[in-house]
Amino acid sequence: MFKNLSFLKRANLTRHPMAQKLFKIMEDKKSNLALAADVSSQKQLLKLADEIGPSLCVLKTHVDILDDFTPDFGYLLKKIAEKHHFLIFEDRKFADIGQTVSLQYSNGIYRISDWADLVNAHIVPGPGIIEGLKLIGHPKGQGLLLLAEMSSSGTLAKGAYTRKAVELGEAHSDYVMGFISLHKLSQQPGMIHFTPGVKLHPGKDSLGQRYRTVDEILIKNRSDVIIVGRDITHAQNPKEQALLYREKAWQAYEQTTR
Amino acid sequence: MFKNLSFLKRANLTRHPMAQKLFKIMEDKKSNLALAADVSSQKQLLKLADEIGPSLCVLKTHVDILDDFTPDFGYLLKKIAEKHHFLIFEDRKFADIGQTVSLQYSNGIYRISDWADLVNAHIVPGPGIIEGLKLIGHPKGQGLLLLAEMSSSGTLAKGAYTRKAVELGEAHSDYVMGFISLHKLSQQPGMIHFTPGVKLHPGKDSLGQRYRTVDEILIKNRSDVIIVGRDITHAQNPKEQALLYREKAWQAYEQTTR
Repeated sequence: MFKNLSFLKRANLTRHPMAQKLFKIMEDKKSNLALAADVSSQKQLLKLADEIGPSLCVLKTHVDILDDFTPDFGYLLKKIAEKHHFLIFEDRKFADIGQTVSLQYSNGIYRISDWADLVNAHIVPGPGIIEGLKLIGHPKGQGLLLLAEMSSSGTLAKGAYTRKAVELGEAHSDYVMGFISLHKLSQQPGMIHFTPGVKLHPGKDSLGQRYRTVDEILIKNRSDVIIVGRDITHAQNPKEQALLYREKAWQAYEQTTR
Repeated sequence: MFKNLSFLKRANLTRHPMAQKLFKIMEDKKSNLALAADVSSQKQLLKLADEIGPSLCVLKTHVDILDDFTPDFGYLLKKIAEKHHFLIFEDRKFADIGQTVSLQYSNGIYRISDWADLVNAHIVPGPGIIEGLKLIGHPKGQGLLLLAEMSSSGTLAKGAYTRKAVELGEAHSDYVMGFISLHKLSQQPGMIHFTPGVKLHPGKDSLGQRYRTVDEILIKNRSDVIIVGRDITHAQNPKEQALLYREKAWQAYEQTTR
Protein backbone atom coordinates (compact mmCIF):
# COMPACT_ATOMS: atom_id res chain seq x y z
CA MET A 1 0.00 0.00 0.00
CA PHE A 2 1.22 3.52 -0.86
CA LYS A 3 2.09 5.39 2.35
CA ASN A 4 1.67 9.09 3.12
CA LEU A 5 4.36 11.33 4.61
CA SER A 6 3.99 11.87 8.35
CA PHE A 7 2.64 15.20 9.63
CA LEU A 8 6.06 15.91 11.16
CA LYS A 9 7.83 15.46 7.82
CA ARG A 10 5.21 17.60 6.13
CA ALA A 11 5.74 20.35 8.75
CA ASN A 12 9.34 20.55 7.55
CA LEU A 13 8.34 20.64 3.89
CA THR A 14 6.01 23.65 4.07
CA ARG A 15 6.75 27.28 4.80
CA HIS A 16 3.16 28.14 5.70
CA PRO A 17 3.36 29.18 9.37
CA MET A 18 -0.16 28.05 10.28
CA ALA A 19 0.18 24.71 8.47
CA GLN A 20 3.44 24.10 10.37
CA LYS A 21 1.74 24.97 13.62
CA LEU A 22 -1.15 22.60 12.93
CA PHE A 23 1.13 19.70 11.91
CA LYS A 24 3.03 20.12 15.17
CA ILE A 25 -0.14 20.23 17.25
CA MET A 26 -1.34 17.05 15.54
CA GLU A 27 1.90 15.20 16.24
CA ASP A 28 2.14 16.49 19.83
CA LYS A 29 -1.43 15.62 20.74
CA LYS A 30 -1.72 12.60 18.44
CA SER A 31 -4.94 14.08 17.16
CA ASN A 32 -6.31 14.64 13.68
CA LEU A 33 -9.79 15.27 15.06
CA ALA A 34 -11.62 18.56 14.52
CA LEU A 35 -14.84 19.27 16.38
CA ALA A 36 -17.70 21.05 14.60
CA ALA A 37 -19.04 22.93 17.61
CA ASP A 38 -22.37 23.70 15.93
CA VAL A 39 -24.23 24.85 19.01
CA SER A 40 -26.28 28.03 19.17
CA SER A 41 -25.06 29.10 22.62
CA GLN A 42 -21.70 30.78 23.20
CA LYS A 43 -21.75 29.61 26.80
CA GLN A 44 -22.23 26.01 25.71
CA LEU A 45 -19.57 26.37 23.00
CA LEU A 46 -16.94 27.65 25.46
CA LYS A 47 -17.83 24.84 27.87
CA LEU A 48 -17.49 22.23 25.10
CA ALA A 49 -14.16 23.76 24.00
CA ASP A 50 -12.76 23.50 27.50
CA GLU A 51 -14.10 19.99 28.02
CA ILE A 52 -13.16 18.47 24.67
CA GLY A 53 -10.18 20.69 23.82
CA PRO A 54 -7.57 18.15 24.99
CA SER A 55 -8.71 15.72 22.25
CA LEU A 56 -8.73 18.22 19.39
CA CYS A 57 -6.31 19.67 16.87
CA VAL A 58 -8.95 22.11 15.61
CA LEU A 59 -12.21 23.52 16.91
CA LYS A 60 -14.58 24.63 14.17
CA THR A 61 -17.05 27.42 14.90
CA HIS A 62 -20.08 29.10 13.34
CA VAL A 63 -19.95 32.39 15.23
CA ASP A 64 -23.07 33.60 13.41
CA ILE A 65 -25.39 31.05 15.01
CA LEU A 66 -24.57 32.06 18.61
CA ASP A 67 -27.69 33.61 20.12
CA ASP A 68 -25.83 34.92 23.19
CA PHE A 69 -22.71 36.17 21.36
CA THR A 70 -20.74 38.84 23.20
CA PRO A 71 -17.78 40.78 21.75
CA ASP A 72 -15.31 39.02 24.09
CA PHE A 73 -16.14 35.65 22.47
CA GLY A 74 -12.93 35.54 20.44
CA TYR A 75 -10.79 36.49 23.41
CA LEU A 76 -12.40 33.85 25.63
CA LEU A 77 -12.12 31.11 23.00
CA LYS A 78 -8.49 31.98 22.25
CA LYS A 79 -7.61 31.59 25.93
CA ILE A 80 -9.12 28.09 25.93
CA ALA A 81 -7.35 27.27 22.65
CA GLU A 82 -4.00 28.30 24.14
CA LYS A 83 -4.66 26.29 27.29
CA HIS A 84 -5.50 23.09 25.37
CA HIS A 85 -3.31 23.73 22.33
CA PHE A 86 -5.76 23.64 19.43
CA LEU A 87 -6.48 25.94 16.47
CA ILE A 88 -9.69 27.87 15.88
CA PHE A 89 -11.35 27.48 12.48
CA GLU A 90 -14.30 29.76 11.75
CA ASP A 91 -16.32 27.90 9.13
CA ARG A 92 -17.54 31.11 7.49
CA LYS A 93 -17.59 29.74 3.93
CA PHE A 94 -16.84 33.18 2.47
CA ALA A 95 -18.47 33.35 -0.94
CA ASP A 96 -18.47 36.95 -2.16
CA ILE A 97 -16.24 39.21 -4.27
CA GLY A 98 -12.83 40.26 -2.87
CA GLN A 99 -13.81 43.72 -1.64
CA THR A 100 -16.78 42.35 0.35
CA VAL A 101 -15.08 39.33 1.92
CA SER A 102 -12.20 41.44 3.19
CA LEU A 103 -14.78 43.53 5.11
CA GLN A 104 -16.69 40.46 6.31
CA TYR A 105 -13.43 38.94 7.57
CA SER A 106 -12.08 41.96 9.46
CA ASN A 107 -15.07 44.20 10.22
CA GLY A 108 -18.52 43.85 11.70
CA ILE A 109 -19.07 42.87 15.29
CA TYR A 110 -17.55 39.40 14.89
CA ARG A 111 -14.09 40.63 13.83
CA ILE A 112 -13.27 37.09 12.70
CA SER A 113 -9.70 37.95 11.73
CA ASP A 114 -8.95 38.87 15.36
CA TRP A 115 -9.41 35.33 16.66
CA ALA A 116 -9.73 32.69 13.92
CA ASP A 117 -6.51 30.89 12.94
CA LEU A 118 -8.21 29.46 9.86
CA VAL A 119 -11.18 30.39 7.72
CA ASN A 120 -12.55 28.88 4.52
CA ALA A 121 -13.90 30.10 1.21
CA HIS A 122 -15.80 28.95 -1.85
CA ILE A 123 -14.09 29.56 -5.17
CA VAL A 124 -17.31 30.37 -7.13
CA PRO A 125 -16.49 34.11 -7.27
CA GLY A 126 -13.05 33.44 -8.83
CA PRO A 127 -9.53 34.20 -7.54
CA GLY A 128 -10.49 37.67 -6.21
CA ILE A 129 -11.98 36.02 -3.13
CA ILE A 130 -8.58 34.58 -2.20
CA GLU A 131 -6.88 37.91 -2.82
CA GLY A 132 -9.45 39.79 -0.71
CA LEU A 133 -9.06 37.44 2.27
CA LYS A 134 -5.28 37.31 1.87
CA LEU A 135 -5.04 41.09 2.31
CA ILE A 136 -6.36 40.58 5.85
CA GLY A 137 -5.17 37.11 6.91
CA HIS A 138 -1.74 36.74 5.34
CA PRO A 139 -0.01 39.54 7.32
CA LYS A 140 -1.29 37.85 10.49
CA GLY A 141 0.12 34.44 9.52
CA GLN A 142 -3.37 32.95 9.32
CA GLY A 143 -4.52 30.29 6.88
CA LEU A 144 -7.24 29.75 4.31
CA LEU A 145 -8.94 26.49 3.31
CA LEU A 146 -10.74 26.26 -0.02
CA LEU A 147 -13.93 24.22 -0.40
CA ALA A 148 -13.00 21.73 -3.10
CA GLU A 149 -15.59 19.04 -2.32
CA MET A 150 -18.60 18.97 -0.01
CA SER A 151 -20.23 16.14 1.90
CA SER A 152 -23.84 17.06 1.05
CA SER A 153 -25.98 15.26 -1.54
CA GLY A 154 -26.08 16.79 -5.01
CA THR A 155 -23.14 19.13 -4.39
CA LEU A 156 -21.73 20.88 -7.45
CA ALA A 157 -18.20 20.80 -5.99
CA LYS A 158 -16.91 17.95 -8.14
CA GLY A 159 -15.02 17.28 -11.36
CA ALA A 160 -13.68 20.40 -13.05
CA TYR A 161 -14.86 22.53 -10.11
CA THR A 162 -12.76 20.50 -7.66
CA ARG A 163 -9.75 20.61 -9.97
CA LYS A 164 -10.05 24.39 -10.22
CA ALA A 165 -10.11 24.68 -6.42
CA VAL A 166 -6.89 22.65 -6.17
CA GLU A 167 -5.26 24.72 -8.92
CA LEU A 168 -6.20 28.01 -7.21
CA GLY A 169 -5.11 26.73 -3.79
CA GLU A 170 -1.73 25.52 -5.04
CA ALA A 171 -1.19 28.81 -6.87
CA HIS A 172 -1.73 30.69 -3.56
CA SER A 173 0.17 28.30 -1.26
CA ASP A 174 1.67 31.16 0.75
CA TYR A 175 -1.82 31.73 2.15
CA VAL A 176 -3.99 28.71 1.29
CA MET A 177 -3.06 25.77 3.56
CA GLY A 178 -5.53 23.13 2.49
CA PHE A 179 -8.96 22.06 1.40
CA ILE A 180 -12.35 21.03 2.62
CA SER A 181 -12.68 17.81 0.65
CA LEU A 182 -13.70 14.18 0.77
CA HIS A 183 -10.34 12.95 -0.57
CA LYS A 184 -6.67 13.89 -0.57
CA LEU A 185 -6.49 16.16 -3.62
CA SER A 186 -3.11 17.89 -3.52
CA GLN A 187 0.33 16.31 -3.35
CA GLN A 188 1.87 19.51 -1.96
CA PRO A 189 2.97 18.46 1.55
CA GLY A 190 1.73 21.69 3.16
CA MET A 191 -1.84 21.24 1.92
CA ILE A 192 -4.02 19.77 4.68
CA HIS A 193 -7.31 18.05 3.82
CA PHE A 194 -10.29 18.41 6.16
CA THR A 195 -13.37 16.23 5.75
CA PRO A 196 -16.75 16.99 7.38
CA GLY A 197 -19.76 14.70 7.53
CA VAL A 198 -18.07 11.97 9.58
CA LYS A 199 -19.91 9.60 11.92
CA LEU A 200 -19.26 6.15 13.34
CA HIS A 201 -22.08 4.86 11.15
CA PRO A 202 -22.77 6.09 7.61
CA GLY A 203 -26.13 7.75 6.80
CA LYS A 204 -27.98 10.98 5.92
CA ASP A 205 -29.81 13.79 7.71
CA SER A 206 -33.17 15.19 6.55
CA LEU A 207 -31.53 18.16 4.74
CA GLY A 208 -29.14 16.25 2.48
CA GLN A 209 -26.02 15.94 4.65
CA ARG A 210 -24.28 12.58 4.06
CA TYR A 211 -22.20 10.83 6.71
CA ARG A 212 -19.15 8.68 6.05
CA THR A 213 -16.99 6.63 8.43
CA VAL A 214 -13.54 7.48 9.79
CA ASP A 215 -11.85 4.68 7.87
CA GLU A 216 -13.53 5.56 4.59
CA ILE A 217 -12.28 9.15 4.88
CA LEU A 218 -8.80 8.62 6.30
CA ILE A 219 -7.74 5.22 4.90
CA LYS A 220 -9.65 4.85 1.65
CA ASN A 221 -9.78 8.56 0.69
CA ARG A 222 -6.47 9.61 2.32
CA SER A 223 -7.83 12.80 3.88
CA ASP A 224 -5.91 14.24 6.87
CA VAL A 225 -8.37 15.58 9.42
CA ILE A 226 -11.91 14.46 10.22
CA ILE A 227 -14.51 17.03 11.26
CA VAL A 228 -17.08 15.51 13.59
CA GLY A 229 -20.13 17.40 14.82
CA ARG A 230 -23.41 16.08 16.14
CA ASP A 231 -21.98 12.61 16.82
CA ILE A 232 -19.83 14.19 19.55
CA THR A 233 -21.80 17.27 20.63
CA HIS A 234 -25.05 15.29 20.95
CA ALA A 235 -23.45 12.19 22.52
CA GLN A 236 -24.42 11.10 26.03
CA ASN A 237 -20.82 11.72 27.07
CA PRO A 238 -19.21 14.11 24.56
CA LYS A 239 -15.79 13.90 26.21
CA GLU A 240 -15.56 10.12 25.96
CA GLN A 241 -16.99 10.17 22.45
CA ALA A 242 -14.28 12.66 21.42
CA LEU A 243 -11.60 10.41 22.92
CA LEU A 244 -12.97 7.49 20.91
CA TYR A 245 -12.95 9.48 17.67
CA ARG A 246 -9.46 10.81 18.33
CA GLU A 247 -8.17 7.28 18.85
CA LYS A 248 -9.88 5.86 15.76
CA ALA A 249 -8.69 8.72 13.57
CA TRP A 250 -5.12 8.55 14.84
CA GLN A 251 -4.98 4.79 14.29
CA ALA A 252 -6.15 5.34 10.72
CA TYR A 253 -3.49 8.02 10.26
CA GLU A 254 -0.73 5.74 11.56
CA GLN A 255 -1.88 2.91 9.33
CA THR A 256 -1.43 5.04 6.22
CA THR A 257 1.83 6.75 7.15
CA ARG A 258 5.49 5.89 6.80
CA MET B 1 -36.89 43.33 -31.30
CA PHE B 2 -38.32 40.71 -28.93
CA LYS B 3 -40.13 42.44 -26.05
CA ASN B 4 -40.40 41.32 -22.41
CA LEU B 5 -43.62 41.15 -20.40
CA SER B 6 -44.19 44.15 -18.14
CA PHE B 7 -43.61 43.79 -14.39
CA LEU B 8 -47.33 44.29 -13.86
CA LYS B 9 -48.22 41.41 -16.18
CA ARG B 10 -45.62 39.24 -14.50
CA ALA B 11 -47.08 40.06 -11.07
CA ASN B 12 -50.32 38.46 -12.24
CA LEU B 13 -48.54 35.41 -13.61
CA THR B 14 -46.71 34.37 -10.41
CA ARG B 15 -48.08 33.12 -7.12
CA HIS B 16 -44.93 33.96 -5.15
CA PRO B 17 -46.09 36.59 -2.65
CA MET B 18 -42.74 38.39 -2.40
CA ALA B 19 -42.24 38.43 -6.18
CA GLN B 20 -45.72 39.93 -6.58
CA LYS B 21 -44.92 42.53 -3.95
CA LEU B 22 -41.67 43.48 -5.67
CA PHE B 23 -43.24 43.72 -9.13
CA LYS B 24 -45.87 46.06 -7.72
CA ILE B 25 -43.29 48.22 -5.96
CA MET B 26 -41.31 48.47 -9.20
CA GLU B 27 -44.36 49.56 -11.20
CA ASP B 28 -45.58 51.98 -8.52
CA LYS B 29 -42.21 53.67 -8.05
CA LYS B 30 -41.03 53.22 -11.63
CA SER B 31 -37.83 51.81 -10.21
CA ASN B 32 -35.81 48.72 -11.01
CA LEU B 33 -32.84 50.07 -9.06
CA ALA B 34 -31.39 48.23 -6.06
CA LEU B 35 -28.80 49.90 -3.87
CA ALA B 36 -25.87 47.89 -2.51
CA ALA B 37 -25.48 49.73 0.78
CA ASP B 38 -22.01 48.34 1.42
CA VAL B 39 -21.06 50.67 4.24
CA SER B 40 -19.54 49.52 7.52
CA SER B 41 -21.64 51.79 9.73
CA GLN B 42 -25.23 51.02 10.68
CA LYS B 43 -25.84 54.70 11.33
CA GLN B 44 -24.65 55.61 7.84
CA LEU B 45 -26.66 52.75 6.32
CA LEU B 46 -29.90 53.87 7.95
CA LYS B 47 -29.23 57.45 6.83
CA LEU B 48 -28.59 56.29 3.25
CA ALA B 49 -31.75 54.16 3.31
CA ASP B 50 -33.86 57.12 4.37
CA GLU B 51 -32.22 59.47 1.90
CA ILE B 52 -32.17 57.22 -1.16
CA GLY B 53 -35.12 54.98 -0.31
CA PRO B 54 -37.59 56.90 -2.53
CA SER B 55 -35.55 55.88 -5.62
CA LEU B 56 -35.22 52.20 -4.77
CA CYS B 57 -37.17 49.00 -5.23
CA VAL B 58 -34.67 47.06 -3.10
CA LEU B 59 -32.01 47.92 -0.54
CA LYS B 60 -29.24 45.32 -0.32
CA THR B 61 -27.40 44.93 2.97
CA HIS B 62 -24.34 43.15 4.37
CA VAL B 63 -25.31 43.14 8.04
CA ASP B 64 -22.05 41.40 8.96
CA ILE B 65 -19.84 44.35 8.01
CA LEU B 66 -21.58 46.83 10.34
CA ASP B 67 -19.12 47.78 13.08
CA ASP B 68 -21.77 49.52 15.18
CA PHE B 69 -24.55 46.92 14.71
CA THR B 70 -27.21 46.93 17.41
CA PRO B 71 -30.00 44.34 17.75
CA ASP B 72 -32.66 46.88 16.74
CA PHE B 73 -31.06 47.26 13.29
CA GLY B 74 -33.68 45.13 11.55
CA TYR B 75 -36.54 46.95 13.24
CA LEU B 76 -35.14 50.37 12.35
CA LEU B 77 -34.46 49.41 8.73
CA LYS B 78 -37.92 47.86 8.32
CA LYS B 79 -39.53 51.12 9.47
CA ILE B 80 -37.60 53.02 6.77
CA ALA B 81 -38.48 50.36 4.19
CA GLU B 82 -42.18 50.70 5.01
CA LYS B 83 -41.98 54.48 4.86
CA HIS B 84 -40.33 54.51 1.42
CA HIS B 85 -41.84 51.31 0.08
CA PHE B 86 -38.81 49.17 -0.77
CA LEU B 87 -37.76 45.59 0.02
CA ILE B 88 -34.78 44.56 2.14
CA PHE B 89 -32.38 42.05 0.62
CA GLU B 90 -29.66 40.70 2.93
CA ASP B 91 -26.87 39.63 0.58
CA ARG B 92 -25.73 36.81 2.87
CA LYS B 93 -24.72 34.43 0.08
CA PHE B 94 -25.58 31.37 2.18
CA ALA B 95 -23.26 28.56 1.14
CA ASP B 96 -23.45 25.74 3.69
CA ILE B 97 -25.44 22.54 4.17
CA GLY B 98 -29.18 22.76 4.95
CA GLN B 99 -28.95 22.26 8.69
CA THR B 100 -26.36 25.03 9.10
CA VAL B 101 -27.95 27.64 6.83
CA SER B 102 -31.29 27.30 8.58
CA LEU B 103 -29.52 28.27 11.84
CA GLN B 104 -27.54 31.08 10.17
CA TYR B 105 -30.76 32.46 8.72
CA SER B 106 -32.90 32.42 11.87
CA ASN B 107 -30.47 32.38 14.80
CA GLY B 108 -27.42 34.28 15.98
CA ILE B 109 -27.57 37.92 16.90
CA TYR B 110 -28.48 39.08 13.39
CA ARG B 111 -31.75 37.10 13.17
CA ILE B 112 -31.82 37.77 9.42
CA SER B 113 -35.17 36.04 8.92
CA ASP B 114 -36.82 38.61 11.21
CA TRP B 115 -36.21 41.52 8.86
CA ALA B 116 -34.93 40.50 5.41
CA ASP B 117 -37.58 40.14 2.70
CA LEU B 118 -35.07 38.42 0.43
CA VAL B 119 -31.83 36.50 0.93
CA ASN B 120 -29.61 34.68 -1.54
CA ALA B 121 -27.71 31.41 -1.68
CA HIS B 122 -25.04 29.60 -3.65
CA ILE B 123 -26.03 26.21 -5.04
CA VAL B 124 -22.61 24.55 -4.51
CA PRO B 125 -23.86 22.48 -1.54
CA GLY B 126 -26.72 21.00 -3.60
CA PRO B 127 -30.52 21.28 -3.14
CA GLY B 128 -30.33 20.84 0.67
CA ILE B 129 -29.37 24.51 0.99
CA ILE B 130 -32.68 25.57 -0.60
CA GLU B 131 -34.62 23.16 1.61
CA GLY B 132 -32.85 24.39 4.77
CA LEU B 133 -33.60 28.06 4.02
CA LYS B 134 -37.13 27.28 2.87
CA LEU B 135 -37.96 25.78 6.28
CA ILE B 136 -37.43 29.25 7.75
CA GLY B 137 -38.34 31.70 4.98
CA HIS B 138 -41.25 30.06 3.18
CA PRO B 139 -43.73 30.17 6.09
CA LYS B 140 -42.99 33.91 6.38
CA GLY B 141 -43.69 34.56 2.68
CA GLN B 142 -40.07 35.59 2.09
CA GLY B 143 -38.07 34.92 -1.05
CA LEU B 144 -34.78 33.36 -2.08
CA LEU B 145 -32.50 34.34 -4.95
CA LEU B 146 -29.98 31.82 -6.28
CA LEU B 147 -26.56 32.92 -7.48
CA ALA B 148 -26.52 31.70 -11.08
CA GLU B 149 -23.83 34.03 -12.45
CA MET B 150 -21.43 36.47 -10.78
CA SER B 151 -19.91 39.71 -11.98
CA SER B 152 -16.35 39.00 -10.77
CA SER B 153 -13.46 37.93 -13.02
CA GLY B 154 -12.78 34.20 -13.25
CA THR B 155 -16.07 33.21 -11.62
CA LEU B 156 -17.00 29.53 -11.83
CA ALA B 157 -20.71 30.35 -12.02
CA LYS B 158 -21.11 29.75 -15.74
CA GLY B 159 -22.09 27.06 -18.24
CA ALA B 160 -23.42 23.89 -16.62
CA TYR B 161 -23.23 25.53 -13.16
CA THR B 162 -25.56 28.34 -14.27
CA ARG B 163 -27.95 25.90 -15.93
CA LYS B 164 -28.10 23.87 -12.71
CA ALA B 165 -28.94 27.00 -10.70
CA VAL B 166 -31.83 27.78 -13.06
CA GLU B 167 -33.05 24.19 -12.91
CA LEU B 168 -32.97 24.16 -9.07
CA GLY B 169 -34.62 27.58 -8.87
CA GLU B 170 -37.45 26.66 -11.23
CA ALA B 171 -37.99 23.40 -9.36
CA HIS B 172 -38.47 25.39 -6.11
CA SER B 173 -40.50 28.28 -7.53
CA ASP B 174 -42.78 28.40 -4.49
CA TYR B 175 -39.78 29.81 -2.58
CA VAL B 176 -37.11 30.84 -5.10
CA MET B 177 -38.13 34.11 -6.79
CA GLY B 178 -35.15 34.83 -8.98
CA PHE B 179 -31.46 34.87 -9.64
CA ILE B 180 -28.33 36.88 -9.21
CA SER B 181 -27.14 36.81 -12.80
CA LEU B 182 -25.70 38.82 -15.64
CA HIS B 183 -28.48 37.84 -18.07
CA LYS B 184 -32.14 36.88 -18.10
CA LEU B 185 -31.94 33.13 -17.56
CA SER B 186 -35.45 31.90 -16.80
CA GLN B 187 -38.60 32.37 -18.84
CA GLN B 188 -40.83 31.78 -15.80
CA PRO B 189 -42.53 35.17 -15.36
CA GLY B 190 -42.12 35.13 -11.56
CA MET B 191 -38.34 34.78 -11.71
CA ILE B 192 -36.67 38.17 -11.22
CA HIS B 193 -33.08 38.71 -12.37
CA PHE B 194 -30.77 40.95 -10.31
CA THR B 195 -27.41 42.06 -11.68
CA PRO B 196 -24.64 43.55 -9.52
CA GLY B 197 -21.46 45.20 -10.75
CA VAL B 198 -23.18 48.09 -12.53
CA LYS B 199 -21.59 51.51 -13.09
CA LEU B 200 -22.09 54.34 -15.57
CA HIS B 201 -18.70 53.46 -17.07
CA PRO B 202 -17.40 49.90 -17.46
CA GLY B 203 -14.19 48.85 -15.63
CA LYS B 204 -12.64 46.74 -12.84
CA ASP B 205 -11.64 47.14 -9.20
CA SER B 206 -8.33 45.88 -7.77
CA LEU B 207 -9.90 42.66 -6.42
CA GLY B 208 -11.44 41.33 -9.62
CA GLN B 209 -14.89 42.95 -9.61
CA ARG B 210 -16.00 43.88 -13.15
CA TYR B 211 -18.38 46.73 -13.90
CA ARG B 212 -20.88 46.81 -16.75
CA THR B 213 -23.24 49.59 -17.90
CA VAL B 214 -26.98 49.88 -17.33
CA ASP B 215 -27.83 49.37 -21.00
CA GLU B 216 -25.59 46.32 -21.35
CA ILE B 217 -27.33 44.66 -18.41
CA LEU B 218 -30.94 45.68 -19.02
CA ILE B 219 -31.19 46.00 -22.80
CA LYS B 220 -28.57 43.63 -24.18
CA ASN B 221 -28.72 41.00 -21.40
CA ARG B 222 -32.42 41.44 -20.48
CA SER B 223 -31.90 41.39 -16.74
CA ASP B 224 -34.61 43.01 -14.58
CA VAL B 225 -32.98 44.88 -11.68
CA ILE B 226 -29.59 46.59 -11.48
CA ILE B 227 -27.67 46.56 -8.21
CA VAL B 228 -25.49 49.66 -7.88
CA GLY B 229 -23.06 50.17 -5.00
CA ARG B 230 -20.02 52.40 -4.80
CA ASP B 231 -21.10 54.51 -7.79
CA ILE B 232 -24.00 55.79 -5.67
CA THR B 233 -22.74 55.47 -2.09
CA HIS B 234 -19.42 57.13 -2.91
CA ALA B 235 -20.91 59.81 -5.22
CA GLN B 236 -20.61 63.49 -4.34
CA ASN B 237 -24.40 63.60 -4.15
CA PRO B 238 -25.72 60.06 -3.60
CA LYS B 239 -29.37 61.12 -3.78
CA GLU B 240 -29.02 62.75 -7.21
CA GLN B 241 -26.87 59.90 -8.46
CA ALA B 242 -29.58 57.42 -7.39
CA LEU B 243 -32.20 59.46 -9.25
CA LEU B 244 -30.03 59.35 -12.37
CA TYR B 245 -29.60 55.56 -12.13
CA ARG B 246 -33.30 55.03 -11.47
CA GLU B 247 -34.19 57.05 -14.56
CA LYS B 248 -31.64 55.31 -16.81
CA ALA B 249 -32.69 51.86 -15.61
CA TRP B 250 -36.40 52.55 -15.99
CA GLN B 251 -35.90 53.91 -19.51
CA ALA B 252 -34.05 50.73 -20.40
CA TYR B 253 -36.89 48.65 -18.91
CA GLU B 254 -39.53 50.54 -20.90
CA GLN B 255 -37.54 50.17 -24.10
CA THR B 256 -37.55 46.38 -23.78
CA THR B 257 -41.13 45.92 -22.60
CA ARG B 258 -44.45 45.53 -24.27
